Amino acid sequence: MPLTMYRMTVPVFQRGLSAMKTYLDKVEVFAEEKKIDSSILVAGRLNPDMLSLAGQYQRATDTSKFAVVRLTGLEAPRFEDNETTISELRERVAKAEAFLASVAQEAFNGSEEREVTIGAGGGVNVTMSGVEYLALSALPNFYFHVTTAHAILREQGVPVGKRDYLGPYV
Amino acid sequence: MPLTMYRMTVPVFQRGLSAMKTYLDKVEVFAEEKKIDSSILVAGRLNPDMLSLAGQYQRATDTSKFAVVRLTGLEAPRFEDNETTISELRERVAKAEAFLASVAQEAFNGSEEREVTIGAGGGVNVTMSGVEYLALSALPNFYFHVTTAHAILREQGVPVGKRDYLGPYV
Repeated sequence: MPLTMYRMTVPVFQRGLSAMKTYLDKVEVFAEEKKIDSSILVAGRLNPDMLSLAGQYQRATDTSKFAVVRLTGLEAPRFEDNETTISELRERVAKAEAFLASVAQEAFNGSEEREVTIGAGGGVNVTMSGVEYLALSALPNFYFHVTTAHAILREQGVPVGKRDYLGPYV
Repeated sequence: MPLTMYRMTVPVFQRGLSAMKTYLDKVEVFAEEKKIDSSILVAGRLNPDMLSLAGQYQRATDTSKFAVVRLTGLEAPRFEDNETTISELRERVAKAEAFLASVAQEAFNGSEEREVTIGAGGGVNVTMSGVEYLALSALPNFYFHVTTAHAILREQGVPVGKRDYLGPYV
């Protein structure tokens, strides 16, 4: 299989979102065992000025969606950022997955050189090629939010592990 | 710039390691301000059965090194996993950076189809193409350890931010 923009986006995001669904299954079991309201875990965060677990799900799904939009020019559904329960986070992931599954590989034709403009902080916009956007923004942002969700859960004692994050190889 | 195996490995790792150096600078300032022995922060972790901050640096540097080794067949220097101070972590990162800087782009010729064998857990090995290894193992592992270092520091109050993680765009 050649290295393509499609291979490094849609299946990568699908795999990461699959891990995030596994985390939700484990949160649910953990909350039942410990007799905790699972919405407390959904609101968990590492630091008061950091996004909650729900926020990490919102940003991970948005990163996947906007990466496709920016690299292909396709339009994506808009999501409200109002999830507070496990089932609402499951719905959020399912909506992102449905969008990703709808994207044809051919939509990425020419995306290596496509100009992408993103915010660089401080109100400054930068324009870069699709390849640079993939390497500098889309992938690091996506993995940041999946891993931070993982970290929030680990810090709260939910037994998620590296294998859940990486997903099965076979 | 075309999408290449080199672009998605060496410069990606260099950028991530650069962020990890910024984190060390911030740990040092934080420790001085709070009059904390910075080695306490180096030993910090989110959960007793998770790797410490030093462990995240060891795994991030190793992931970058082994990705190059597996995709190119080059040999890499061996690192001891014995860092306990900021300056030792800086040396560790510098050694990984020196190795990455020594790798020619041409070393990645043919790496898309190169067979890579890695452990899949439970003593099972799997063999996959270079592209699959990049997408399923090298990049998610690397970003996992950079982000978990970030999470450990955030949880301990060190003022690292998303901009430090992503690095400058311009």
